[in-house]
Amino acid sequence: MESRNFILKGDIAYSKTQTRLLTSENSYLVCEKGKSAGVFPSLPPAFAGLPLADYTGKLILPGLTDIHMHAPQFTFRSLGMDLELLEWLNRHAFPEEAKYGDAEYAHLAYGRLVEHLKQGPNTRICFFATLHVPATMILMELLEKSGLVSLVGKVNMDRNSPDILREADAEASAGATREWLGAIEKNGPYKNTYPILTPRFIPSCSDDLMRALSAIQKQYALPLQSHLSENQREIEWVRELCPASSSYGNAYAQFDLFGAQTPTIMAHCVWSDKKELELMRSRSVYAAHCPQSNINLSSGIAPARRFLELGIPTGLGSDVAGGVHTSIFRAMTDAIGVSKLRQCLIAKDEAPLTLEEAFWMGTLGGGSFFGSAGLPGNTAATGSFDPGYEFDALVIDDANLTAPFRASVEERLRRVVYLSDDRNIVAKYVRGNPIK
Amino acid sequence: MESRNFILKGDIAYSKTQTRLLTSENSYLVCEKGKSAGVFPSLPPAFAGLPLADYTGKLILPGLTDIHMHAPQFTFRSLGMDLELLEWLNRHAFPEEAKYGDAEYAHLAYGRLVEHLKQGPNTRICFFATLHVPATMILMELLEKSGLVSLVGKVNMDRNSPDILREADAEASAGATREWLGAIEKNGPYKNTYPILTPRFIPSCSDDLMRALSAIQKQYALPLQSHLSENQREIEWVRELCPASSSYGNAYAQFDLFGAQTPTIMAHCVWSDKKELELMRSRSVYAAHCPQSNINLSSGIAPARRFLELGIPTGLGSDVAGGVHTSIFRAMTDAIGVSKLRQCLIAKDEAPLTLEEAFWMGTLGGGSFFGSAGLPGNTAATGSFDPGYEFDALVIDDANLTAPFRASVEERLRRVVYLSDDRNIVAKYVRGNPIK
Repeated sequence: MESRNFILKGDIAYSKTQTRLLTSENSYLVCEKGKSAGVFPSLPPAFAGLPLADYTGKLILPGLTDIHMHAPQFTFRSLGMDLELLEWLNRHAFPEEAKYGDAEYAHLAYGRLVEHLKQGPNTRICFFATLHVPATMILMELLEKSGLVSLVGKVNMDRNSPDILREADAEASAGATREWLGAIEKNGPYKNTYPILTPRFIPSCSDDLMRALSAIQKQYALPLQSHLSENQREIEWVRELCPASSSYGNAYAQFDLFGAQTPTIMAHCVWSDKKELELMRSRSVYAAHCPQSNINLSSGIAPARRFLELGIPTGLGSDVAGGVHTSIFRAMTDAIGVSKLRQCLIAKDEAPLTLEEAFWMGTLGGGSFFGSAGLPGNTAATGSFDPGYEFDALVIDDANLTAPFRASVEERLRRVVYLSDDRNIVAKYVRGNPIK
Repeated sequence: MESRNFILKGDIAYSKTQTRLLTSENSYLVCEKGKSAGVFPSLPPAFAGLPLADYTGKLILPGLTDIHMHAPQFTFRSLGMDLELLEWLNRHAFPEEAKYGDAEYAHLAYGRLVEHLKQGPNTRICFFATLHVPATMILMELLEKSGLVSLVGKVNMDRNSPDILREADAEASAGATREWLGAIEKNGPYKNTYPILTPRFIPSCSDDLMRALSAIQKQYALPLQSHLSENQREIEWVRELCPASSSYGNAYAQFDLFGAQTPTIMAHCVWSDKKELELMRSRSVYAAHCPQSNINLSSGIAPARRFLELGIPTGLGSDVAGGVHTSIFRAMTDAIGVSKLRQCLIAKDEAPLTLEEAFWMGTLGGGSFFGSAGLPGNTAATGSFDPGYEFDALVIDDANLTAPFRASVEERLRRVVYLSDDRNIVAKYVRGNPIK
């Protein structure tokens, strides 16, 4: 199955639209040159010569995309969960990230992370690394070898951070970013691993640094990721730091680092008001909805229903280690769960997310960023099996999840989302390449 | 290791109090006649002759107790999750439970459930079965064979339920309960499987039925379980059904079926007001806190901090299939999570639950019910390793959860609670008997 032209046979499900699943029992999913050629109830003669992997009775789903994760924080998942964001950063995240100045530690820790991710259901991930160039390169090389597709950001941070984890000034930080981009050009380019600009968040980036990053963004046409309106104290802090900005989002936008010509993911958006949401929509800024992290760090519940209503592009993030679970199946059920609590407790007019909507977010919702991020080559979106999408697929053996009654493909999918773990994944393809 | 006198060696952790963990690295946990004889950093000579299982480097924790679960609903976990309580009962729970009129179906479905539970971290469970006597006996026999300790209730329901799942009248329902208790006397008594009176909830039990159950309770000195103040529409309905009752809890209390001389577990208590909570406290009614179910069915967030402050005895429940996950580790993290959202969104003065408190709830909190339920024989509480507690223990291999830095026993416990699954459980003891 090393060729990227092949057929999978089984019970297929994917999001046809944000609200509608398409299911096709005992059908054929065709991969051509790493992209989907479509789903067929019976095999068209044109594909008759391709090798076929027979997964009859098993589920075939799109791979999942995690659009917000901190790679160095994998090591301390579940620790420090009694703290809110800013204390948690200072007491756990920053000291741990500082350790990645040691390449040996980075190799050990990132090695474990990548091995873990290969086993799970995610096929694509947008990573924050640390500010360290060598450690970020180690992560990228491990990821490239893994077969997973990823965007990786060397983090920029030149203020309001501890001495152990802060770049000297804007020039030093931007210089390190150019050095990193140079190393990528020299080592690669990688086939599946791309750089993404990553100013940590407004509080840790000076205006000079943001200006320098804007110049780098324009020169390299890079996508960008950062954090937005996660925690009320954080927002208050941004207001103090940026008195000239009309909102947290505007503090990025004034440097052309908030969507529009800069493909952008903003994590959280828990407390974004109407105006900030409208700014995201008008600039096609992606919301990375990270429900588990928003629970664990007592941040709140993001208005995911509003994201969808307004047409803000939305994907799911694990936000490890604010979140502790890497699987985007878990993020789907967390997203549904918190949306129910949001309606029940504080927003009666916001209907809870359905399974269909959460599944869309975790597949095509986030996967579409890879088609709009301006990545090199013939790069398309993933997360759908419609023709032309990049072929990320999971084969799931759900035999241990079945009931003593006949369940539809849709019901089986629900069970997989809520109940499966990595043992249920019997095969995993990324861009048509098998990686498990 | 068939003898119930033995020693486990490893890294031990358990709740010394509601707020304090006791951890003891590389220590000895002694089991005598199925009860703990204590934890010792070095082995007292008195125990030197006992067989020792060396689990050096592994964690040894108390078994977990699930004090609220619907056994017949295991089959449809994760389906119907877009509905609130009353619609969900009518469209999913009741039709599925009706199938247990077929003994063959009951055998198949309960067999899968019990096999699943043997693999997980729970050692004790309080089950709702269905109204069917033969199916309830099938469940009890399977449980007795499994080695798990459980309380099982044949459900009573004689009104406001569909024809397929309703007893004809109070007399028929009470008669079936006497028949069931007779069958237990004849088949047993079981060593590890006990009956518990189980009026489904006020809406499905007529006053005549409640009076008859009160008589049965007094005759057999049985404990009792039911549901309380889960959903706002349900509470409104109870108000209509019981105009003479001052609260939902009072509707049970007027029949002597709410604590005091009747050891009682009430599930949910999401919307219990001060007066109802005070009634629970004064009668030592256990609250079964079921956070995941309360999310899934859009019920709300129970005031768990208030339960603890008031001294209401509190344990955790999976509430399968309102909840979809059976592991009480998951219930612990859900309990912590929703307590953070509760503080963040609606109750600033209620501090979130700590890991210590949630761990206590899932071990000694719920496990203590087995010591206060008036069970026959020399029955004590479980959930602690202090001397005299019944010996339910888990041995956890957390090697795949460790970090590239040295972690304390307490930190490792945190990881196990958030991240482990049944693969991490290498041994499981219930009342000193190995069952995995």
